[in-house]
Amino acid sequence: MTATTARNRMLGHVITAEQFDRDLLDVLFRRATALDGVRDDRLAHRIMATLFYEPSTRTRLSFESAMLRLGGAVIGTEAARTFSSAIKGETLEDTVRMVSTYADLIVLRHDEAGAAARAASVASVPVVNAGDGPGEHPTQALLDLYTIERELGRVEGVRVAFCGDLRFGRTARSLALLLALYPGVRMTFVAPPVIQVGGDILARLEARGVECRLAEQLTDVLDDVDVVYQTRVQKERFTDPLEYEQARTAIRIDGAIMRQLPATAIVMHPLPRVDEIAPEVDADPRAAYFRQAANGVAIRMALLEMLLA
Amino acid sequence: MTATTARNRMLGHVITAEQFDRDLLDVLFRRATALDGVRDDRLAHRIMATLFYEPSTRTRLSFESAMLRLGGAVIGTEAARTFSSAIKGETLEDTVRMVSTYADLIVLRHDEAGAAARAASVASVPVVNAGDGPGEHPTQALLDLYTIERELGRVEGVRVAFCGDLRFGRTARSLALLLALYPGVRMTFVAPPVIQVGGDILARLEARGVECRLAEQLTDVLDDVDVVYQTRVQKERFTDPLEYEQARTAIRIDGAIMRQLPATAIVMHPLPRVDEIAPEVDADPRAAYFRQAANGVAIRMALLEMLLA
Amino acid sequence: MTATTARNRMLGHVITAEQFDRDLLDVLFRRATALDGVRDDRLAHRIMATLFYEPSTRTRLSFESAMLRLGGAVIGTEAARTFSSAIKGETLEDTVRMVSTYADLIVLRHDEAGAAARAASVASVPVVNAGDGPGEHPTQALLDLYTIERELGRVEGVRVAFCGDLRFGRTARSLALLLALYPGVRMTFVAPPVIQVGGDILARLEARGVECRLAEQLTDVLDDVDVVYQTRVQKERFTDPLEYEQARTAIRIDGAIMRQLPATAIVMHPLPRVDEIAPEVDADPRAAYFRQAANGVAIRMALLEMLLA
Repeated sequence: MTATTARNRMLGHVITAEQFDRDLLDVLFRRATALDGVRDDRLAHRIMATLFYEPSTRTRLSFESAMLRLGGAVIGTEAARTFSSAIKGETLEDTVRMVSTYADLIVLRHDEAGAAARAASVASVPVVNAGDGPGEHPTQALLDLYTIERELGRVEGVRVAFCGDLRFGRTARSLALLLALYPGVRMTFVAPPVIQVGGDILARLEARGVECRLAEQLTDVLDDVDVVYQTRVQKERFTDPLEYEQARTAIRIDGAIMRQLPATAIVMHPLPRVDEIAPEVDADPRAAYFRQAANGVAIRMALLEMLLA
Repeated sequence: MTATTARNRMLGHVITAEQFDRDLLDVLFRRATALDGVRDDRLAHRIMATLFYEPSTRTRLSFESAMLRLGGAVIGTEAARTFSSAIKGETLEDTVRMVSTYADLIVLRHDEAGAAARAASVASVPVVNAGDGPGEHPTQALLDLYTIERELGRVEGVRVAFCGDLRFGRTARSLALLLALYPGVRMTFVAPPVIQVGGDILARLEARGVECRLAEQLTDVLDDVDVVYQTRVQKERFTDPLEYEQARTAIRIDGAIMRQLPATAIVMHPLPRVDEIAPEVDADPRAAYFRQAANGVAIRMALLEMLLA
Repeated sequence: MTATTARNRMLGHVITAEQFDRDLLDVLFRRATALDGVRDDRLAHRIMATLFYEPSTRTRLSFESAMLRLGGAVIGTEAARTFSSAIKGETLEDTVRMVSTYADLIVLRHDEAGAAARAASVASVPVVNAGDGPGEHPTQALLDLYTIERELGRVEGVRVAFCGDLRFGRTARSLALLLALYPGVRMTFVAPPVIQVGGDILARLEARGVECRLAEQLTDVLDDVDVVYQTRVQKERFTDPLEYEQARTAIRIDGAIMRQLPATAIVMHPLPRVDEIAPEVDADPRAAYFRQAANGVAIRMALLEMLLA
């Protein structure tokens, strides 16, 4: 498939990370790099609606910043339940049909898996999934992958250690599936058994030829990684508080970990972090998580341009 | 009165549907049609404030979309009570005087009848009433009337069946009073007695020469209508649940009703709907309610232009 | 120090009123006057984030109006706690680092003293303090001082009576400290003992050569003032309700007070007011409080231009 047809396939909705293939990712990342730092009016007079059924100020501001940098305008709400609360029952579909008449693109955040696909099925404008509950959050996965390419100069063959809540967290899982599109990627999943990555994901990755490894201690795998992708561990997942403390300690990133980490490796985190990365790490040039957040704006600029320009 | 003087009368505030006469409506609808689809900068550097004392995201987004399409900018809040909550007592008048120094126009939503007129009496910029509780919601009535003209090509002589909560709902009442400005309009009010239209409204309509009829079953009147204007029936209005079920069924619009409805008639609804229009109706070209929502943007563009340009 | 170096000192953050000296104030006020009424695009493609940890719609709308008048764009939230609420623990510092990648300037409202300085210490863009709890609210103090200069044509030598809650209210205190930069200013503090100005403030003012006087009745000092700066008295400060009533009456501004006030004096109030200024005063040309609110937009335009242009 050529880049042109890849791009054409794009001009619908952004619902799942898995709708992206290598060609489309290449097009997207080239556009993100080209748009980084751009401030112009290429999307002048276009209106983006942020339709958030639950607050996610972080994601909303990133999308809005992306739209405004391209000269577009924004309407929106973080209390989209008010569309239905007063009457106990307007459907998501009706709300989306109506907002389609107000805006040229809808960024949807919802708490139910599948909500974005439902919205896309009735919208007369493009829908971008900004997280649908336990479902997908494709722009997070895209910005994570883009950060790896940008920081390391390549994705093929990289060695990634995923840490933290790999069973329930959707970010690590989505990124792992995207990485599987690139040959030679090796993955290590570092977590205590209770939150270790599911067998279904491992099976899918191995079916795609990815070399996978499991570990419980971050220190056991540090010598052999290009990326540490840290995520938050929720205390509620554990029945035994002592077990939680051990798990937390086993994967916590601090100055000692950084001294062991290769000089060319990076540390990523989807943010927000609590204490799974110590503040002393922030000043290390290998701490890539705030650059990762900034990359989210560039990726969203590229998506908005592809959907609207 | 000429169109010019009509337009000049307009350049104050928009408080009630009844401030509009035929000439002014004609000017407004011509402007709405001319502005439909427009995206330019004719209101560049003008600022609209949406001052909402209760959330009405639907109405707010429609106004904001209208302003942004004309190149204007928006500030606002859906939590305008915060102006007074902390201190138990800033008056609406003080808030409006202050917001008048921030914005070139105020769109006000309030829960008390008469709030818009009070705001207009102290504002140094135009005030647009976006609903003041049980009072008025003039832009809804205007977009409803505009939808009839646009869908049917005329308003004079149309036959309209109003359905649902005609006693407490303000939208049907406001539209009926506006329609009475046009000769030959015939109206049927379809509702069970407990929510049937009030005698005061009927008297005002008949005083203006409108031919009015009452009915309880939508099927009894379908042969003789150009417009079915459906509204929601609230269960709370009924003391007897069985009576509520009967009422709901008597006016519910579904595929069977659509087969009986004349080919040139349309179905309208101010939205949101719950189940008083079945989803199977949506695909029928006579289902005009989402086009009606879209017309709200055009009508508000026309009003903003008349007030600010 | 020349105006140029003063202005250069400015190009950091706006954290406290006390970072402003006479030269910088002169530059700022000249810019505010020059920008009053301006609507252009000098801040086109620049993005301001309003990061509010507590609602302050008044302050937020004033900043947003200022930014939009200069052609800039705005992203923001009045529910900034959502950055941390879901996870019990993202620090203000992390949020600010992240928002620094979305916006070119952050306007921060927080409920803890010192929050603005903490934000500035990690932000990669300018931070403007829009109130940090019991701490500072420098743009309010600046617009108050600017209002005096603009209304009276001078600040040197003016006689100001501060009324109301002078012990706990931060606005009077901040303005008094700024006024102390101007020679010949005389201040009278009018309040019952329980909310009278603190000895520490008096000591600082007298150390700068300000002539200070205390009073309990506004009528005792009216003959000898150019400015009455009224503030709200909170009932909660008093243990005895009768004492509260006496205090309130002693400093309430009504028609009788205005008849005693010199013809060239003005009445100011940071707003919102409850009943400490009677509505009958509003029509008096010496009632400057709504002009004061309008000046807030001009002052904030000047600050935004100095920080971003």
